[in-house]
Order: sequence, then structure tokens, then C-alpha cells
Amino acid sequence: MDHPPEFSSIVNVFPCQVQWGDCDPAGIIFYPTYFRWIDAASWALFEAVGYGAKRMKTEHLAMPLVSAECQFLFPAEHGDRCEVRSRIARFGGKSFVVEHEIVRSDGTALARGRETRVWGRYVDGPGTPMKGEPMPEALKQQFRAR
Amino acid sequence: MDHPPEFSSIVNVFPCQVQWGDCDPAGIIFYPTYFRWIDAASWALFEAVGYGAKRMKTEHLAMPLVSAECQFLFPAEHGDRCEVRSRIARFGGKSFVVEHEIVRSDGTALARGRETRVWGRYVDGPGTPMKGEPMPEALKQQFRAR
Amino acid sequence: MDHPPEFSSIVNVFPCQVQWGDCDPAGIIFYPTYFRWIDAASWALFEAVGYGAKRMKTEHLAMPLVSAECQFLFPAEHGDRCEVRSRIARFGGKSFVVEHEIVRSDGTALARGRETRVWGRYVDGPGTPMKGEPMPEALKQQFRAR
Amino acid sequence: MDHPPEFSSIVNVFPCQVQWGDCDPAGIIFYPTYFRWIDAASWALFEAVGYGAKRMKTEHLAMPLVSAECQFLFPAEHGDRCEVRSRIARFGGKSFVVEHEIVRSDGTALARGRETRVWGRYVDGPGTPMKGEPMPEALKQQFRAR
Repeated sequence: MDHPPEFSSIVNVFPCQVQWGDCDPAGIIFYPTYFRWIDAASWALFEAVGYGAKRMKTEHLAMPLVSAECQFLFPAEHGDRCEVRSRIARFGGKSFVVEHEIVRSDGTALARGRETRVWGRYVDGPGTPMKGEPMPEALKQQFRAR
Repeated sequence: MDHPPEFSSIVNVFPCQVQWGDCDPAGIIFYPTYFRWIDAASWALFEAVGYGAKRMKTEHLAMPLVSAECQFLFPAEHGDRCEVRSRIARFGGKSFVVEHEIVRSDGTALARGRETRVWGRYVDGPGTPMKGEPMPEALKQQFRAR
Repeated sequence: MDHPPEFSSIVNVFPCQVQWGDCDPAGIIFYPTYFRWIDAASWALFEAVGYGAKRMKTEHLAMPLVSAECQFLFPAEHGDRCEVRSRIARFGGKSFVVEHEIVRSDGTALARGRETRVWGRYVDGPGTPMKGEPMPEALKQQFRAR
Repeated sequence: MDHPPEFSSIVNVFPCQVQWGDCDPAGIIFYPTYFRWIDAASWALFEAVGYGAKRMKTEHLAMPLVSAECQFLFPAEHGDRCEVRSRIARFGGKSFVVEHEIVRSDGTALARGRETRVWGRYVDGPGTPMKGEPMPEALKQQFRAR
């Protein structure tokens, strides 16, 4: 309901695997691991459209979080190979929403995440305050599924 | 809207501090850290009513997650001393909701989190399947603010 | 000098990448990340010889640590693609040593790690005490480079 | 044997607790957690002599790692309250060694760690290269046990 003009986004796939240390004494994934994954998956989504880590750093760009959430559908276990499928759900003024599906290699849906982020820049370089700004239109177009 | 008969819960305080490794290259807290904190704060909340780690383990109890979310209000920095203030927001049949406020030592609200968990038990001991069950009424009463 | 009868081991390659949240405010990898990687790389080394996560769990096997160390040679940055090259350095009675080289995709050596582990078993199943035992000779042979 | 002119250092105590997510499916602490702790304990040691996080940042100071190691003596479990006792083992030219003992609240020694670090400065401010430099003599004196 909250992203009416649905944006048809590319979907980027970020592969990952549940490691021993990602699991808790119950023998299943410790849930903050999913947030580590979806953060990394958002970076990978931007890399897919030409905004990799080095460029983000060089151009003093950032994408800080407004909020994040995740539903946990099925417990992942040590050794499970997974992928995070990430897409832009919508663009706001200076903010945007990334949606993530975490799926096990056999197709089982494990979790569903959602991040609201701001597009920002360290206006005077590293170590200076970050300011939100509209995402360039050309970049937005890069996320459009063809 | 989703917890109508508001439950007046005790509030447990979990102290924490932003460590060097909890921060990212932007110099602020890496957001999954908040989820690590609120998970630990939920365990501390249960310890406060007599269900500490050892008891949970001995009685084969668990409290797996259904969902988790967090709003990020103000960026925390390395060295910041904080506390997570946790309370039960509501009880469902076998589930319950824990709300967390993360506040810096000077009173600044940093983040607000919310976890939906199930009360469960490894019915045949460690390594066997976990089943949700209603939380004992006596335990629920322990969370009631006096 | 401390493993005289040098064992000529297979080398397993574990690919990894420096994520945003793996880095600290200095903009480089936070060093415990390397230990997360080399732990995962040891599990991958055992998976390569038929002892994957599921088998280890089913047979109640474990490989707890005696010690771990790492030398940091060159700072890794966000986005760097790396691999951990792992090999058995030597077998003791119930212990063994795994050596790890962490190398960036351009060939730069980033770090060198070393873990001493015990081969063990939860003799009465999950949740019961772990006892060290000699690694099966057939398994040792699997690590031998051909 | 490797730090002959033994330095009689102050000992700083960093309290910590084993959280649910710090443990692995074996139900004991996941070993990189110790390295997270000893890194934080080194920062706390410097804070104890007046070099807290904010000052380190303002003066563009850093203390990157050369190497780190840990011996694991006894497995820590969820809920264990611990402390890291940290001291300077020796000063080199631009480097120094920090030793850490991790002790459970009942006095059980859990682990023993050791970090070799360099005292450094981002000579041209944040985002610029870090250069090692001799630690100020006045700071060294601060670590001397009285």
C-alpha cells in the first residue's frame, strides 16, 4: 500500500552462505546476520548499476538508513547456500526503498527484508557532515527493468 | 493499532557502548549492530524476570523471531554510551512483541526497535524441533509494571 | 619451525568480499572479520573432503579451537574481492593446524592466519560434553595433495 | 621471551558478557567474538589514559594492527559475565603490544590474547594515508603502573 506507483526494478542477486559463526546455540541463523546480508546486497545492487564501493567513496556518496525490517519465514542452517534478491521498491524525494528476498538454493523463501535509505553526500569530503540529496535521474533510470 | 489492550510492562535497561568495530567507514554505527543489541536486550529482559540464559537452556526454551524492525533516528558514533530500554508491547497466543528504545547517555534517542517473537520449546531436548507454546501466565504477570 | 614433518596438503579456496559492515571508521577491514573468514574457510576445507556442515552435525563432530592468530599484511578495503587459501599444516594427536592465506583478487597478500583445532565429538549427542579424539586416518589421507 | 625489558603496565578492566548471538551451534562462544572484545578492550585501555574515541578521532590518531593472537582456555557460554584485563606488554619504535586476559566472573581464565599495533596518524586528516609514528613519551608514561 505504501509504494503506489510501483517501480519495475531490476533484480540483483547477491549469493551468500550461512556460516558456522552466523548461527546461534539453537543451530539456526542469528537474525542480525540477515541484516548484514541485506546491507551488503544493497551495496551490490548499486554496484550492478555502476556505483561500486570505490566510486561511492571517491564521489563522497552515502546511503544511510532510515529504517530496516525483516520477516523471518523459515530457519536457515549452517551450510545453507542462499541468495538475496534485491530491487528498488520505490523512490521518494531523497529517499528510496530497497526490498530483499532471501531464498535458499532449493527455492525455500527464508526471509523478506526492506530498507528505507537516503541518498546522501559528504559535502565537504570524508569526515564532514552528510546531506541528503535527490538521486540523479540517470541513476534512477539504471534501476528500471527493461 | 496492533496491540490494542496496551500492556503496561516493566522496562529493563541494557547498557551498551558503540565500539570501533561496530562502526562503518562513514564513522557511524553499522545498523545490524542495533539488532545485535536489541536481541541481547530481549534476553536481558527475560533474565530480569527470572528466565536467564542458563534456565532457558536447561528448560529447553527458546524465543525465535517472527520479524524485527528498527527506525534509525540519530547516528551513533564510536565511544557513545547507550542503553536499550526494553518492554513487552503485547502478548499474542504463542507470540509476543518486544519494543526497544535505544538512547544515548545524554538522552538523545538513537533508534527504536521492535521484535515479534514466539515462545517455544525444544520438546525432545537439544537438537530436536522447536514448537511454539503459550507463555506461562505466571511469567506474563512478571512483566506487568507495578 | 614448529611443524617439522611437513604435510603436503590440498589447498582449498574460499572466496569472500570485504563488505561495508566489515570495515571500521578508518575505512579498512575490521580485523576480527579475518577470523570470521578463516573460521568459515576451515569449514569449507572440511567440506571439500566430504565433511560438510550437515555431516559434521549428524555425526556429532566438532573442531573447537585451541588458538588462532593472524598477521595483517596490507589493509583491505570495502569492495575488495578476496580468497582464503587454506591447508592443513600438520596433524597432532587429536589436534591439527590449519594455515590460511588471504589474498586479494590482484594477488596482493592481505593476511596470513593459523588455527590450532581439536577433532572432537559430542559423545552423547547434541548438548552433551565434547571429547577430543584422533582424526580418522582415512580423513587425514583426504587432505593429502596428490 | 620476546619482550625482555618487561614494562610494568597499568591494567584496565573491560567488562563484557557472552550474548546469544556471540555463540555458535555448539552452544559456546564463537571465537572471533574474543577478538571483537580485545579490540574494544584496547580502545578502553587508551581511554583510561585520556585517549578516548573522540580524541583519537579529532587528532587523527589510529592504532592499526600488525598481528593478533588468542589462546582459548575454557569455553564461554551464553550469559557468562566476563572481563578483559588489558595491559601494555611492551613498546617498540612505532609499535606496541597489548596483552589481554579474558576471565569469567568466577575467576575462570577463558582466553589470553595479544595484539601488536602501530601508533599512527592520518597525516592529512580523514581519508588520507596513515603513517606510523613514535608514541609520545608522555603517553607511554601514562601506562606505567605506579
